Amino acid sequence: MSKGYVVPIGGAEEKMRDPAILKRFAKLCGGRGARIAIIPTASQLRETGDKYVRVFEDLGVRHATTLSFEARRDTQDPEALEILEQADGVFLTGGNQLRLSTHIGGTPVAEVLRRRNLEEGLHVAGTSAGASYLSEHMIAHGDDGPTPLGDMVTLAPGLGLSRQLIIDQHFRQRDRLGRLLTALAYNPTHIGVGLDEDTAAFIGPDDALEVVGSGAITVVDPSELEFSSIDQAQRGEPVSILGVRLHVLVQGGRFHIRTREARPGRGGFQS
Amino acid sequence: MSKGYVVPIGGAEEKMRDPAILKRFAKLCGGRGARIAIIPTASQLRETGDKYVRVFEDLGVRHATTLSFEARRDTQDPEALEILEQADGVFLTGGNQLRLSTHIGGTPVAEVLRRRNLEEGLHVAGTSAGASYLSEHMIAHGDDGPTPLGDMVTLAPGLGLSRQLIIDQHFRQRDRLGRLLTALAYNPTHIGVGLDEDTAAFIGPDDALEVVGSGAITVVDPSELEFSSIDQAQRGEPVSILGVRLHVLVQGGRFHIRTREARPGRGGFQS
Repeated sequence: MSKGYVVPIGGAEEKMRDPAILKRFAKLCGGRGARIAIIPTASQLRETGDKYVRVFEDLGVRHATTLSFEARRDTQDPEALEILEQADGVFLTGGNQLRLSTHIGGTPVAEVLRRRNLEEGLHVAGTSAGASYLSEHMIAHGDDGPTPLGDMVTLAPGLGLSRQLIIDQHFRQRDRLGRLLTALAYNPTHIGVGLDEDTAAFIGPDDALEVVGSGAITVVDPSELEFSSIDQAQRGEPVSILGVRLHVLVQGGRFHIRTREARPGRGGFQS
Repeated sequence: MSKGYVVPIGGAEEKMRDPAILKRFAKLCGGRGARIAIIPTASQLRETGDKYVRVFEDLGVRHATTLSFEARRDTQDPEALEILEQADGVFLTGGNQLRLSTHIGGTPVAEVLRRRNLEEGLHVAGTSAGASYLSEHMIAHGDDGPTPLGDMVTLAPGLGLSRQLIIDQHFRQRDRLGRLLTALAYNPTHIGVGLDEDTAAFIGPDDALEVVGSGAITVVDPSELEFSSIDQAQRGEPVSILGVRLHVLVQGGRFHIRTREARPGRGGFQS
């Protein structure tokens, strides 16, 4: 079977009135018959998992289950692992992305998510902290503001479902262009994806990304970077970066990760 | 053809009296007939490349060449790329690892090194900054001391020749256990390798690592980690980490990356 979707969401997605993102994810997973497992580990609020169970049930999904991994030993639980083996979709809630990487990193849970997303078509979505955790290089935390500064961002290893992207969330609301540029300047191999709140990137097995939601996605492509001064910048000092390409995409906009082409409206890429 | 060796060196390797590490690397690449390309980009000293050319020539290597990539556009140079296509070995000097990732990251040079190491048996060694750059998750810089502290280490994407290791260098000389533990605590997926000066890890295509040199290699394996508090630690606050396995290996010692087994002396692993 083929690769599943990877769906980072910028946080604060609409859950009641017009839950376009969660509805689209539920449909992708099979609609009424979908089995969706919710991992609320990023959150320290006990009710987070159950809240998402109710939202997915309101959308008609009959099998939504919450799996709370509160300690590393919980990730060995055969019942929880069996639920993940049977799931059509997994949803990672918001909270603190370092809770996800410290609780799940290097455990059978991370291994199942990676293997089944890559080989068995498991779809994996994450919102806010859950979105950050999806990439190989994860923004753990950082400072706000539009200008890149020396040492303003802390990267850590993430789940690794996307090897090409560095993902940031609450992007416009928390003014995070500076920290995304800083993260990309370290090594201009990756593409930056800054997700506004209530906005998701649906990334298909063909590496095409489509925007769903009420905000925008800022794509930062450093593949033609001419120069960056991050190797010389002291902590807090502004960093010079020349030659970055930037796209702002809204609902229906698309970006192809391999060809690095952006399209404003609906309609696919020529392949 | 098969994968080439990856050889991180802890810095300050002996070059005159008894250059055991460089001699072993030259032999691995084919001895007298070896074509070795030196990339001194991490260093800001103009003489670094030529110095290594002379050391390899003194060891009998007839084709040692230095390729200085001073600006990102230099990485497009067809002559330099052809030398890398023909090389048996590549040697990355010390300096600042962020100079390597900012100058080479996302360019054809990084692409050639990755492809030929993985598919065509190109051997790649790096010393000090050059060693750090070899892994997917690179320690860019950090604070000294044996105790892990919140936010004491800055990670950035590296070249990615090793996906399983996080490499640190000048390990005993600069007291870097704390920053290596902090880097591993973020996501206990990786294995930490702390290289003393004049000490190298020869990592073969079979994922077995062998120690060569006058110091030690500290291997930190967090696969049985029970708990870490890095997700709650403020900057500079000590971090609690429970259940890490640690090995100190000297000349001839071996560690197998897949099975995570350590052996003190010479002799191979059962596979």
